[in-house]
Amino acid sequence: MLLIGLLAGTLAGVIDLAVDWMTDLKEGVCLSAFWYSHEQCCWTSNETTFEDRDKCPLWQKWSELLLSQSEGASAYILNYLMYILWALLFAFLAVSLVRVFAPYACGSGIPEIKTILSGFIIRGYLGKWTLLIKTVTLVLVVSSGLSLGKEGPLVHVACCCGNFFSSLFSKYSKNEGKRREVLSAAAAAGVSVAFGAPIGGVLFSLEEVSYYFPLKTLWRSFFAALVAAFTLRSINPFGNSRLVLFYVEYHTPWYMAELFPFILLGVFGGLWGTLFTRCNIAWCRRRKTTRLGRYPVLEVIAVTAVTAIVAYPNPYTRQSTSELISELFNDCGALESSQLCDYINDPNMTRPVDDIPDRPAGVGVYTAMWQLALALIFKIVITIFTFGMKIPSGLFIPSMAVGAMAGRMVGIGVEQLAYHHHDWIIFRNWCRPGADCVTPGLYAMVGAAACLGGVTRMTVSLVVIMFELTGGLEYIVPLMAAAVTSKWVADAFGKEGIYEAHIHLNGYPFLDVKDEFTHRTLATDVMRPRRGEPPLSVLTQDSMTVEDVETLIKETDYNGFPVLVSRDSERLIGFAQRRELILAIKNARQRQEGIVSNSIMYFTEEPPELPANSPHPLKLRRILNLSPFTVTDHTPMETVVDIFRKLGLRQCLVTRSGRLLGIITKKDVLRHMAQMANQDPESIMFN
Amino acid sequence: MLLIGLLAGTLAGVIDLAVDWMTDLKEGVCLSAFWYSHEQCCWTSNETTFEDRDKCPLWQKWSELLLSQSEGASAYILNYLMYILWALLFAFLAVSLVRVFAPYACGSGIPEIKTILSGFIIRGYLGKWTLLIKTVTLVLVVSSGLSLGKEGPLVHVACCCGNFFSSLFSKYSKNEGKRREVLSAAAAAGVSVAFGAPIGGVLFSLEEVSYYFPLKTLWRSFFAALVAAFTLRSINPFGNSRLVLFYVEYHTPWYMAELFPFILLGVFGGLWGTLFTRCNIAWCRRRKTTRLGRYPVLEVIAVTAVTAIVAYPNPYTRQSTSELISELFNDCGALESSQLCDYINDPNMTRPVDDIPDRPAGVGVYTAMWQLALALIFKIVITIFTFGMKIPSGLFIPSMAVGAMAGRMVGIGVEQLAYHHHDWIIFRNWCRPGADCVTPGLYAMVGAAACLGGVTRMTVSLVVIMFELTGGLEYIVPLMAAAVTSKWVADAFGKEGIYEAHIHLNGYPFLDVKDEFTHRTLATDVMRPRRGEPPLSVLTQDSMTVEDVETLIKETDYNGFPVLVSRDSERLIGFAQRRELILAIKNARQRQEGIVSNSIMYFTEEPPELPANSPHPLKLRRILNLSPFTVTDHTPMETVVDIFRKLGLRQCLVTRSGRLLGIITKKDVLRHMAQMANQDPESIMFN
Repeated sequence: MLLIGLLAGTLAGVIDLAVDWMTDLKEGVCLSAFWYSHEQCCWTSNETTFEDRDKCPLWQKWSELLLSQSEGASAYILNYLMYILWALLFAFLAVSLVRVFAPYACGSGIPEIKTILSGFIIRGYLGKWTLLIKTVTLVLVVSSGLSLGKEGPLVHVACCCGNFFSSLFSKYSKNEGKRREVLSAAAAAGVSVAFGAPIGGVLFSLEEVSYYFPLKTLWRSFFAALVAAFTLRSINPFGNSRLVLFYVEYHTPWYMAELFPFILLGVFGGLWGTLFTRCNIAWCRRRKTTRLGRYPVLEVIAVTAVTAIVAYPNPYTRQSTSELISELFNDCGALESSQLCDYINDPNMTRPVDDIPDRPAGVGVYTAMWQLALALIFKIVITIFTFGMKIPSGLFIPSMAVGAMAGRMVGIGVEQLAYHHHDWIIFRNWCRPGADCVTPGLYAMVGAAACLGGVTRMTVSLVVIMFELTGGLEYIVPLMAAAVTSKWVADAFGKEGIYEAHIHLNGYPFLDVKDEFTHRTLATDVMRPRRGEPPLSVLTQDSMTVEDVETLIKETDYNGFPVLVSRDSERLIGFAQRRELILAIKNARQRQEGIVSNSIMYFTEEPPELPANSPHPLKLRRILNLSPFTVTDHTPMETVVDIFRKLGLRQCLVTRSGRLLGIITKKDVLRHMAQMANQDPESIMFN
Repeated sequence: MLLIGLLAGTLAGVIDLAVDWMTDLKEGVCLSAFWYSHEQCCWTSNETTFEDRDKCPLWQKWSELLLSQSEGASAYILNYLMYILWALLFAFLAVSLVRVFAPYACGSGIPEIKTILSGFIIRGYLGKWTLLIKTVTLVLVVSSGLSLGKEGPLVHVACCCGNFFSSLFSKYSKNEGKRREVLSAAAAAGVSVAFGAPIGGVLFSLEEVSYYFPLKTLWRSFFAALVAAFTLRSINPFGNSRLVLFYVEYHTPWYMAELFPFILLGVFGGLWGTLFTRCNIAWCRRRKTTRLGRYPVLEVIAVTAVTAIVAYPNPYTRQSTSELISELFNDCGALESSQLCDYINDPNMTRPVDDIPDRPAGVGVYTAMWQLALALIFKIVITIFTFGMKIPSGLFIPSMAVGAMAGRMVGIGVEQLAYHHHDWIIFRNWCRPGADCVTPGLYAMVGAAACLGGVTRMTVSLVVIMFELTGGLEYIVPLMAAAVTSKWVADAFGKEGIYEAHIHLNGYPFLDVKDEFTHRTLATDVMRPRRGEPPLSVLTQDSMTVEDVETLIKETDYNGFPVLVSRDSERLIGFAQRRELILAIKNARQRQEGIVSNSIMYFTEEPPELPANSPHPLKLRRILNLSPFTVTDHTPMETVVDIFRKLGLRQCLVTRSGRLLGIITKKDVLRHMAQMANQDPESIMFN
C-alpha cells in the first residue's frame, strides 16, 4: 500500500508538472530554461513584482520569439497557429502511442476497472505497458487542450500501479480476490491524488468503483490515499503547498433563500447528465457500428483541430480547464485582477478587506458573462464528441467545468439581482445594502457538483470530495441539495450513469450491486439446459473412459463439468474444471504407465471394481472440487442473484432432492436480468 | 430517514440543554429563572461585560443563596456538600429508573447494537420504553458528574428512534433485513449528533457498528446523519452555532520532528486501551459472578460518592468532562484567561495577535500540570469502575479526556523544551526563537484520538471524526500516526476492542466480520450430529403421521426440521420451521375435517397413495421451504463461515452426493470458531 501510494502520488505529480509545462508551451517558451512553465519561468526571474507577474521578460510568446512582436494582427495569427499546431502534434502523438503500444490505455478506464473488480478478467488491462503509455499520453492529451480531464485516467494509472505491486508479492499475485482488494485501495489512491481528497477517494472507491469492500480494504484504501496525497503534496506541483486542486475560502455563509437557485443548478446538472450520457452513448455506438470507428487517428485529429480553432479566441476556453474551474470557484477578493471580478468599487472603500459587500457589476463582468455563455455551449458540445475517443480521457473536469460556468453565471445573476433589488421580499431578510450576501464562487462549486453528480450519479463521495476541496462543513447542505436534485432528475430519465452506460455499451459481464432484482422467477427458469435442449454434459464418478472424456472436452467448450454418481441416480458429487481435466489427462498419458484411451477415470476414493483384463484406471479425485455451490430448483432468482453477487460465483449447480438438474452461470444470470429489464439479452456479449 | 434524523437531532439537543442546566445546578441556581444554566443566566442579564462573564449577580452559588457568603471555609464546605448531594440524587434517580422501567437502558448499547445488526434479536432492546428511559437517565448520569459520556448511549437512542419509525412502515417492520439497514443508518445519525460529525458518523456505522452495509445504506446514513446534525445545529445547544462539540482552530502547522511525541502518545493510547479493556472486563466479570452484582443501586451510589468527593477539589475534574476536553484542545489565544494559558508574556508585545510565539510557562501552567496529572490518574481509575454499571454510560468522552490530559501535558513539555533549548539539534531547524512552533492543544487532540483508538480500535472513522472536529486536513497525518500506533500497540496485547470484549463477556452470538477464519477444518467436522450422537431429527415427505410429528416437536427444541424423501434415500427436499409446523397442525386439527393423530402428513404436490380406510391426509407443502441452504461435507469451514457472514444465515444443511448428513447452525459455527481460537466454546451461551 505504501508503495502504491508513493508511486501513484509521484506519477500524479509528474503528470501535473508536465501538463503545466506543455500547456504553456502552446503559448510560448521560457528563455532561461525551456523546461520551465510560464509561472516557474517568471518566478525564478526575480525581476517581477507581484503585480505584473504575468509579464516577465524571460517568458516569450511565440510571436515575440519569432516575429519580435507581441501585439498586432500578425502576432495574434502566429500565436493562434502555433497553438493549433502544438495541440495537433500532442494529440497525434497521443493517439499513435495508444494505437501502437497499448490499446487499453484509451478511455477513462473506470468502467473497465468496475468490471474487473466485479470478478471479470481483462488480460493486460492493468499491465505495465498500459501504465507507461497511459501516463505519457495522458500528459499529451491534457496539454493538447482537448475537453477532457486527467481524473478518471489517474484512477486507471493508480490501479495499474496496484496491479504491478501486487504481482511482486505471491500472496496477492496468486489470489484473485486479494488482488482485487488491492485494486480497490489503489482506486482510492487515484482519486485521492486527482483531487487531493483522501477521504473522498476512499468513499469514491466504496460507492462507485468497488464491488466487494471488506473493512480491511477500507483501512488500506485510507492509508494508500493518504500516502498518495502526501507524496503529491511534497512534490507540490501546484506551487501552493496545498493538497487540493481548487482551494477556496469563502467569507460569507449561505442563506436559506439561496437553496432555490442551488436546486435549480441541481436540475441543470441532472439534465446535463442525461443529455451527455444519451448523446455520448449514441455517438459511441455510431462509432462502433459505422465506418467512423475505422479512423480513430483522423477522428482525434479532427476533434483536436476543431477544439483548438474554436477555443483560442475565447479566454475561458483557451486556458486549461482546471485553471478555468479554479478561477470560477474563486471568491472575488480585493486584490483579484481577473475580468470576472471587475466590479465597480465604492470610492469610499479605502483599504482591502476580506468582507467586501456586494457591488454592481462592471463592464468586465458583462463581457465575461457573454464569453462564459459561449464557452459553456462549446464545452457541452465538444465534450460529447471527445469522451470515448481512442485516447485517455476523463470527464470529471469537463463536467465540473460545465457546471462551474453555469453556476457562476447564475451566481452573478443572483448577486446583481440582490444588489439592485434589496427591497424584494426574498432579499429583504438577509441582504441589506452594503452586506456581502451572495458568493458567485459558491454557485460555481454547487453547479460543478450538480453536473458531476448528474453524469456519474455519485452522491456521498461527490459531496465529500467537494467538501474536502473547500475544507468547511458550512457548505455541505447546498452541495447535498444540488447533488440529490441532480441525481433525482437524472434518474428520472434513466437509471444508468455514464460508467454503467459504457459498461453496457461494451457488453462487459457486470452484475451491478446497485440494481435490485425483484422479479419472482425461480432458478429453474434460468438454468441450463432449458426444455428441449440436449441434456447437461456431465461426468460420472467411475464409469467413463479417458476417451469419453476427451471427446466430451473436444465437443463442448464449457469451463467445467459436474460429476455424478451415475447417470441414473443423477446424484452430484462434485465439479471438475475443464482446464484441470485436460492437464491431468495429458500428464497421466505422458507419465503414468498403462493409461490408454480405454482406461476408466474415477473420482472416488477407491478404484472401481473392474474386469480382470481392463487397463489401469486413472484416479482424478485430486482435481475434483468436492464442494460445488448448489441451490435447489425452487430457489427464487432474487436469492440466486444475491448469492452470485455476495460470493462472487461464476457458476452454481441446480439440484432437486439431491438430483442434479442443471447449471446457472454468471452469463445466464446477466442474460436473465437483461431479459427481465426488457433489454436484449444478447447485448451481453463478452466481447 | 428524515424523521429519524429529526428526532435524533432533537433528542440530542434536549439532552445537551438539560445536561448543561443540571450540571450547573450542582453549583448554584439562577435567580431570574431557575431553569437557566450558568451561561444562559449570565448572558440574559445584560449587566455583564465580556471580562467578568463568570461573575454575574443573578447566578448565585448555593453558599451565596443559603449563607450569603461566597468565600471562606464554610461556604466551600456547603458548596462541596451540595455538589455531592445533587450528584447522589441524580445517580440514584437514574439507576432506579433503569432498574424499574427499562433494564436494557443501561450500558453504552453499542455491543448490543452490533449484535442486533448481525442478525440476533433482543426483544425490547430498541423499544419505546428503552428510548424514553435512556434519554432521561442519560441526562441524569451525565449531570451527576460520573466519568462517562453520552456518545455511545446516543447511538442507542438513535437506533431506538430508527426502530420506532421503522415499526410504523410495514415495508420495514416486516422485513428484518430492511429494518437492520434502517438501524445502521440510525447509528450513523447517533454519532453524527454526538460529535457533530456527519461523515465520521457514516464511517463509524460502516467500520464499527454495521454488519452488512449495502450502498443504499451509505446514502441513507449520510442523509440521516446530515438531517440530525442540522436539527441539532438549529437547536444550537452549545450557543456557538457550530455543528461541532469541540471546535478548534490552530494557527501553526506541525513539523516532522513532532511525529515522535505523537507516536509516543499513540503508544500511550494503546497501553491505556489494553489496560482499560482488561481491567474493565475483569471487574465486570467479577460483578457478574460474585455477590457484587446483586446490589447495582448501591454500587452506583458508592461510585458516584467517590467520584464527587474526589472530583470537587480539583478544577479539572469538577467541570464537566466535555468542557475539560474543550479547554485542553484549545490553543492559547491572546484573550484566553484559563490557568492553562498563564504564560509569561513578552512585555514588548502590545496588541493581541493570532500568531503568538512560544513563551515560558507561568506559575498557573505549573499548577495546572500537577492538577492535570492527578486528574489523569483519577480518571483512569474511576472510568474502569464506572463503565458497565447499570446506568447508561459511554466511554468516548472519558477516553478522550484521558488522552487529552496526557496529550496536553506532553505538549506543554515539548513546548517548554523547545523554548528553553532552541539550540538543540532537533529544534534548530524548525523552531527559531520568537516563533510559534508547538501547539499544546494539538497534542491534546492527538492524545485523545490515540486513547479512543486504543479502546475502540477504530481507525478511519476515528481520524475522520477528529478531522471534522478541527475542520482541517492539515492535521490528518499526526492523527493517523497516533491512531495507527495506538491500534498496533493495543492489538499486540489482544485483538479485542472494548465492544467485542463486552459482546464476548455477555455471550452474544456475534460472528465478527473482522476475524479471519484460516483453519483447515471442513463442514463435516462441525456439523451435528457428531459421531456417536443420535441421528438428526428429520421429517419424511409422505410417511409420518401427525402424531409422529407432534412427538418429535415435543421431544426436541430445534427451530426446524429437514424434510427428506424417505429415511432410506436420505435425499433432502426442503426445510420446515418448527413454529410453522405447530401452527399448521393446530389450524388443521381445529378447522380441517378428518384430521386425526393418525393422518399422514405429506409435503409433496400430490397426496401419497394410501390404504382405503386410512384417515384424510394433511398437506403441508405450503410451509415447506423448498430452497434450504446446503453445502457439501467437504466444504472448508472458511467458506462456510464466509457464507454465514455474507448471507446472514442461521442454519445450513450438510449433504454428500445429495444425501443429508447433518446441520450446521450459527451457534455451531461460533462454538467452532471459539474452539479454534483456544477459547472455551461453552462461553457462547446466548444468555
